[in-house]
Amino acid sequence: MGDVAQRLAEIVGANQVLTGEDIPDHYASDEALVGEVHRPAYVAKPATTAEVAQLLGAATEHGVPVTARGSGSGLSAAARPRPDGLLISFERMNAILEIDTVNHVAVVQPGVTLSELDEKTAEAGLGYTVYPGEMSASVGGNVGTNAGGMRAVKYGVTRHNVLGLEAVLPTGEIIRTGGKPVKTSTGYDLTQLIIGSEGTLALATEITVKLHPRLRHGATVLAPFTDLDTVVRAVPTILAAGLEPHILEYIDALTMAAITYTTGLSLGVPDEVREASQAYLVVAMENRDPDRLEGDVASLGELLGELGASDVYVLDGGSARKLIEAREKAFWTAKAAGADEVIDVVVPRSAMPEFLARSRELAAKTESGVAGCGHAGDGNVHLGVFQKDPVKRASLLHDIFAVGMELGGAISGEHGIGRAKKEHFLQLEDPAKIELMSRIKHAFDPAGILNPGVLFD
Amino acid sequence: MGDVAQRLAEIVGANQVLTGEDIPDHYASDEALVGEVHRPAYVAKPATTAEVAQLLGAATEHGVPVTARGSGSGLSAAARPRPDGLLISFERMNAILEIDTVNHVAVVQPGVTLSELDEKTAEAGLGYTVYPGEMSASVGGNVGTNAGGMRAVKYGVTRHNVLGLEAVLPTGEIIRTGGKPVKTSTGYDLTQLIIGSEGTLALATEITVKLHPRLRHGATVLAPFTDLDTVVRAVPTILAAGLEPHILEYIDALTMAAITYTTGLSLGVPDEVREASQAYLVVAMENRDPDRLEGDVASLGELLGELGASDVYVLDGGSARKLIEAREKAFWTAKAAGADEVIDVVVPRSAMPEFLARSRELAAKTESGVAGCGHAGDGNVHLGVFQKDPVKRASLLHDIFAVGMELGGAISGEHGIGRAKKEHFLQLEDPAKIELMSRIKHAFDPAGILNPGVLFD
Ligand SMILES: Cc1cc2nc3c(=O)[nH]c(=O)nc-3n(C[C@H](O)[C@H](O)[C@H](O)COP(=O)(O)OP(=O)(O)OC[C@H]3O[C@@H](n4cnc5c(N)ncnc54)[C@H](O)[C@@H]3O)c2cc1C
Ligand SMILES: Cc1cc2nc3c(=O)[nH]c(=O)nc-3n(C[C@H](O)[C@H](O)[C@H](O)COP(=O)(O)OP(=O)(O)OC[C@H]3O[C@@H](n4cnc5c(N)ncnc54)[C@H](O)[C@@H]3O)c2cc1C
Repeated sequence: MGDVAQRLAEIVGANQVLTGEDIPDHYASDEALVGEVHRPAYVAKPATTAEVAQLLGAATEHGVPVTARGSGSGLSAAARPRPDGLLISFERMNAILEIDTVNHVAVVQPGVTLSELDEKTAEAGLGYTVYPGEMSASVGGNVGTNAGGMRAVKYGVTRHNVLGLEAVLPTGEIIRTGGKPVKTSTGYDLTQLIIGSEGTLALATEITVKLHPRLRHGATVLAPFTDLDTVVRAVPTILAAGLEPHILEYIDALTMAAITYTTGLSLGVPDEVREASQAYLVVAMENRDPDRLEGDVASLGELLGELGASDVYVLDGGSARKLIEAREKAFWTAKAAGADEVIDVVVPRSAMPEFLARSRELAAKTESGVAGCGHAGDGNVHLGVFQKDPVKRASLLHDIFAVGMELGGAISGEHGIGRAKKEHFLQLEDPAKIELMSRIKHAFDPAGILNPGVLFD
Repeated sequence: MGDVAQRLAEIVGANQVLTGEDIPDHYASDEALVGEVHRPAYVAKPATTAEVAQLLGAATEHGVPVTARGSGSGLSAAARPRPDGLLISFERMNAILEIDTVNHVAVVQPGVTLSELDEKTAEAGLGYTVYPGEMSASVGGNVGTNAGGMRAVKYGVTRHNVLGLEAVLPTGEIIRTGGKPVKTSTGYDLTQLIIGSEGTLALATEITVKLHPRLRHGATVLAPFTDLDTVVRAVPTILAAGLEPHILEYIDALTMAAITYTTGLSLGVPDEVREASQAYLVVAMENRDPDRLEGDVASLGELLGELGASDVYVLDGGSARKLIEAREKAFWTAKAAGADEVIDVVVPRSAMPEFLARSRELAAKTESGVAGCGHAGDGNVHLGVFQKDPVKRASLLHDIFAVGMELGGAISGEHGIGRAKKEHFLQLEDPAKIELMSRIKHAFDPAGILNPGVLFD
């Protein structure tokens, strides 16, 4: 055992450190479809904040790069360790420390998975409303990526649902930011700065999240449209009507065919309607009062008709759940279909039609394919990109990202930049901003040990 | 004219620069009740972002400290210039650049006042939902302080309603952060970092804010309680019921007496109820549907009875408006009554009873008075502090802030630290956090020209 491994073992215990061939494959990767995969030199599994602080102290001392890992379900390659690095896995720090039913917050360790938290909060009639497609994801990983998901249209993304952190700085110092109150104007908002920083500024060791009351009554509506433009054009009007859907997704015909096929789901859409449909809108609403819900479903149905839907189906509970699950699995479907990359550009929602049209044009010009679905309410377009040639693909992605930015959007709405999109980020972002961000990085991490190679070169 | 004034005049035009005796008094101060007031050496009134950039460039070159001013209604002395400094007043950059009814955002210059924006958005049936008590405040000032106000209980504070900025760095560089989309995971969130930084990191020259549909039907309910504890204990239950009030304020009896007296407002509360009341709850709700609103008012009335209200009054439109206005003016009332300081500690809402009880005890021990009201839904307690002796007052404030922090809260919920509470902030905050914040400050402002003396020494 080398010096470093010895030191790590002193901190977390010898049986919580892995090195070399003993490191299982899954620690080498996350779910990004691209980029290099290396086993780290060390994996350490701390049980306490104090251990995390000591690990970071030791890493600084020995100049070892550190990558944090929650569940490794991220899509930006930001949880991929360096071959000479230490992977800190939060799998053992997975306690739910408190469900506070008076203030409507939960205090959790970072390794808690979304399904664990969902189950536990349900018992109290409350819920943490960040639902990225993958329920094995950890709350710490949500903080790392600023995860979104389908319900963000009503409840916001991780940033809007995390109130406070305990975090360890790369120097080994432990700080607490924010807390249970919903607001503060007391110095710079370090909570918000750490959220979405992809493990490059500080490691979250305790997270205080907002909980919302679970509304007992829900309904899901499916509306096919004969063309994709009409679908995305309908979105702002639905939101303006004040019906407050908690899910508002578009799914293009190819993706719908693929996800219903792979999951064996039948939605009761007649063949002739399905064949004439280029895209679908899925709208889910919830209410504490069943009559109000019924009224809203009726209004929505009418509105969808006016907005050009070919038909409107109110799905029964079983089909609704299956459709949402299938949509959540769209990433796996795209991967199985041979997608070479999955991107999640965000644009103002009014710009979705133009963004999609121009992306398709760019794809056609390079003999590539793009297909997908997206959090339409947020203007967040998830596209599977099919182009085997890495050079052509890089240039296509560059052009698609540039269109998104030109339309007032950003490269990633919720998946992050990580290593996977760094090259494009560094090329397309304003150099003054990149410079400023790297000075902020330096303010947190003067030795540069936290996730080097993510966001910056 | 000195060198510096000459240079400023070249940038903004000679008639947009003031120096020495020509500077009207109001540029010397904001509305904080404490602290020193100095006229700045220079006032410049830029008309464009480019001019702001040049002003900051010149300030860096000449080592002149710069303070930004919106409307000067802030309560933390953060808009007070230094005697040797340049005050950049945004009064001429007050255009509403766009009301985007499709994406529900407005793009404004920082000097726009809340009343101007309110009027303009109302025409489109939309609204910017940050309503601090003072409608002459500017949107740029909201960004500076992360302003809150009564509707934060439903709509959040400035932080939750600002989506993007154009900002000038102290180095003179112009950056754009965020934009119209509601989310992004593309590098560090500079928008959130600048919000609430009290003019110490960058100056906002264009602001993209969220707009919400105005709900047509509203009702305001007033409930007297025989003791203050019961009022604040009722708050979490009201929020848990899912009635989504947009205003949820408590007002103690002394403050209620003062604000109704000074505004000549009569609320129809019988003398015997009033005399037995120690505090009031004001709850306002709104809905797009009048029947739903009526149902909610009925549920709320019942709930308030169960929670110990002595009575429940549904106010008519006129009285409701006047009461809300009187509440907004509580600061002026406290000032007129001789309050020596107004503070706005935020705590988890469940901790309000203990916070208030302990604050009263601390006040009694030092023969001081505390009275007030607050954004009860947010756990944000606004207390007028009556104690003429500055040494006793400082020690009382220190102890009250310490109690707030011990209960999991922070020194300020929405007014900011500025110069007014800096001493306490630096004493009570974790030194590791202060150090980190000052490194972040340095990352933005290596020459230290932006609002020196605010937040840090
Ligand atoms: C099928 C599928 C569907 C998905 N759908 C969505 C979706 O709709 N929306 C969405 O936003 N995402 C989606 N994702 C991506 C992913 O689930 C989220 O990004 C999630 O937040 C990752 O959590 P994790 O625990 O797996 O994080 P990891 O992949 O382990 O790590 C992600 C990042 O967070 C950092 N990190 C981990 N723990 C900490 C910590 N304690 N402190 C600081 N940083 C830390 C890591 O270093 C890394 O940078 C999907 C993924 C899959 C596989
Ligand atoms: C009667 C009364 C009631 C109030 N009630 C509330 C309340 O309920 N809630 C609440 O939150 N506040 C309240 N306030 C405080 C105040 O109205 C808010 O803080 C408001 O945001 C200040 O806006 P302003 O334009 O007056 O800012 P100023 O006082 O001019 O400036 C405030 C801060 O913002 C900075 N700043 C100004 N412009 C910019 C810019 N363009 N870029 C960067 N920084 C800038 C300044 O340097 C300063 O640090 C109240 C004030 C009064 C007088």
